[in-house]
Amino acid sequence: KVDKKRLMEKILELSRIGALKGGGVSRLALTDADKMAREWLLQWMKALSLEVCIDPVGNMFGFWGSKDLSSTILMGSHLDTVATGGIYDGSLGVIAAMEVITTLKSLGVKPAGNIGVVNFTNEEGVRFTPDMMGSLFMSGGITREAVLNTPVVGRNDLTFQDELKKAGFSGDFDSTGFAPKAYLELHIEQGPILEHKSLDIGVVEKVQGINWTKFTLTGMANHAGTTPMDLRRDAGYVASQMGVYLRKLTREISRLVGTLGSLSFYPNLINVVPEKAVFTVDLRHPDAMELAEAQNKLEKYLLAVCGQEGVRSEQENLVRFDPVDFDQHLIATLYNTATNLGYRFDKMISGAGHDAQMMASICPAAMIFIPSKDGISHNENEHSSPEDIENGTNLLLNAVAKLGGL
Amino acid sequence: KVDKKRLMEKILELSRIGALKGGGVSRLALTDADKMAREWLLQWMKALSLEVCIDPVGNMFGFWGSKDLSSTILMGSHLDTVATGGIYDGSLGVIAAMEVITTLKSLGVKPAGNIGVVNFTNEEGVRFTPDMMGSLFMSGGITREAVLNTPVVGRNDLTFQDELKKAGFSGDFDSTGFAPKAYLELHIEQGPILEHKSLDIGVVEKVQGINWTKFTLTGMANHAGTTPMDLRRDAGYVASQMGVYLRKLTREISRLVGTLGSLSFYPNLINVVPEKAVFTVDLRHPDAMELAEAQNKLEKYLLAVCGQEGVRSEQENLVRFDPVDFDQHLIATLYNTATNLGYRFDKMISGAGHDAQMMASICPAAMIFIPSKDGISHNENEHSSPEDIENGTNLLLNAVAKLGGL
Ligand SMILES: NC(=O)NCCC(=O)O
Ligand SMILES: NC(=O)NCCC(=O)O
Repeated sequence: KVDKKRLMEKILELSRIGALKGGGVSRLALTDADKMAREWLLQWMKALSLEVCIDPVGNMFGFWGSKDLSSTILMGSHLDTVATGGIYDGSLGVIAAMEVITTLKSLGVKPAGNIGVVNFTNEEGVRFTPDMMGSLFMSGGITREAVLNTPVVGRNDLTFQDELKKAGFSGDFDSTGFAPKAYLELHIEQGPILEHKSLDIGVVEKVQGINWTKFTLTGMANHAGTTPMDLRRDAGYVASQMGVYLRKLTREISRLVGTLGSLSFYPNLINVVPEKAVFTVDLRHPDAMELAEAQNKLEKYLLAVCGQEGVRSEQENLVRFDPVDFDQHLIATLYNTATNLGYRFDKMISGAGHDAQMMASICPAAMIFIPSKDGISHNENEHSSPEDIENGTNLLLNAVAKLGGL
Repeated sequence: KVDKKRLMEKILELSRIGALKGGGVSRLALTDADKMAREWLLQWMKALSLEVCIDPVGNMFGFWGSKDLSSTILMGSHLDTVATGGIYDGSLGVIAAMEVITTLKSLGVKPAGNIGVVNFTNEEGVRFTPDMMGSLFMSGGITREAVLNTPVVGRNDLTFQDELKKAGFSGDFDSTGFAPKAYLELHIEQGPILEHKSLDIGVVEKVQGINWTKFTLTGMANHAGTTPMDLRRDAGYVASQMGVYLRKLTREISRLVGTLGSLSFYPNLINVVPEKAVFTVDLRHPDAMELAEAQNKLEKYLLAVCGQEGVRSEQENLVRFDPVDFDQHLIATLYNTATNLGYRFDKMISGAGHDAQMMASICPAAMIFIPSKDGISHNENEHSSPEDIENGTNLLLNAVAKLGGL
């Protein structure tokens, strides 16, 4: 069993780095706060006598045993956060992995092969696009050059490479040469399902597919008072129609979630018909075909309403991640271990994207979820109870022990 | 008849002050460009031997005869523009008034009483709220103190008074003590109606009522991937519903125009359900009762959809101007004069707000519209032909002559 007090102390310790007044943290990838969190983890890894390796995109590995990835059971997550993030998202997975090793070491037992901890760079994707960048790199989904040349969002004078160097976390460990033996990630659910079902644990068997699209609508700016309604080419009106249609679509296609999260009008004046509307749509579905169908329907509707209004539409796909099935053997191991530990648990689908879904393309991977209070995440009010944190970490410990033949 | 060449040269001259690359101008109220335009007008007024008077809010008057307002036929408009404005909006009315006096003087005739030209401060309302501020002040709708203390939009360290002093156009002429004998304003239509009807002139008999409301919707920020659709409190979705409903409302209530021109989401992120949506609605109708009914219906619908989504709504009325009827005698004079001059014209309603509507509350007032190419205004591409400009100015000249007993 892990040490709940020790575990919670580490969570508290890390929560001071990039702390916000409201109880949350701001540690955008490769900022000073992220650098400090990385240095904190580095010291801890060294104190645990782990061999520390940094790869070219700043992914941090701590190996117990040799740094041979192919014989390593890897655990981890990310230390970066959104601008007003909670203290558990990502951090929990890294700290729990460190606690698992601490516990095993204090018990004087070592599983077969190597055990590793990883802190992936830029999981959140707020400061650099796309999200899950570090794990995407490790799993071969993006090149080293593409990562290094990624600009800081909203700037054209600063790249990932600049910021990585400034942080001092550019290394030459080859994380892409060999795949780990397995990858396990403990994470908060970030949704309300476990809480609603009064469960301790979710064994994640799948991550739903994600489609992010940016739409730019161009109509014509015109005077709000003098322009007859039937002569308007109102880009803002078409954006509104899309917002309403998107909700309708989620009622038509079961299990679809859709969000029109960002929207900007130009010139954005009270008495001018909007010439331009730029907005994003986040579509998710556990089934690739149904996700594609939803996207098609959305684009078809847009075409129709643009035609009616005399508005031109351009679109750019920002992110497209297929649904990911986790490893059946790992799922069974988590399932059996959770049963043995007496937890109330169920299999579930992850609504959010995670590093584990990238790792799943190169090695057996799976995830453990614990409840999020009120389903709140990416928010300073994000909360998970110490008991749930202990349970999740215990499950991780016992699963790793089992996989390591203990 | 006015001198078209002389008139167009003056328009060209003024268009160089605050000139933009695209052929338009930027002369936001009380900026350096506006100051330069004012100085240009001041010199011209002096060259014409007009007595120049400045009131406490920077309204500029040029009197031919004495500065006794009560015996003055006043003509004018405004020299300020929107940020990317055209060269005719406002400027035409001031320049045409100067050309009318120039023509009368060169003919050696003077109407009975005084003739005056006015340049009203901040008609556009972009840099200081509300719009039509100078004429609102002159007509007693806003106090001197309220005008002087108005902040520059988006700043809390700079007021109208600061900028007026900096421009050097704070005077002590009492523009509010007496009402002029009449007020006439020539303006571009800023809409497509005259062009569509192939008319030379619009005799404006009414300005429609204007209602500006700012709505702030507050829901709950949540993860776009993990939050089930039925648990969302999406402020952005409600804003979209309002955009769609507004258009529907304009189909239900004849002659209503409605614009959702500005809209901002918070936190405005692709994968976060919008917690906040702030938007404005510009509603206009020639009938006060129907305008009020439209506003009521809008608010009722908002209440209903907010209730369904669990979103809270606050609202602030920004502007409320009742519909204004212009003076029947002045309208008849313009009508008869236009007939005599052989113009193709019709009576019409102004879709936009104008200084003349403020003046209408204290004296007989009316307006002359000339066609706007493609109905475009508040845009660098704003255009009216030299012939239309000549016609409009001729009508102004002959109407003033008639009113002055010539
Ligand atoms: N776990 C998480 O919040 N990832 C960010 C990407 C997303 O799912 O929107
Ligand atoms: N004439 C004009 O554009 N006035 C601005 C106020 C408005 O009508 O929206």
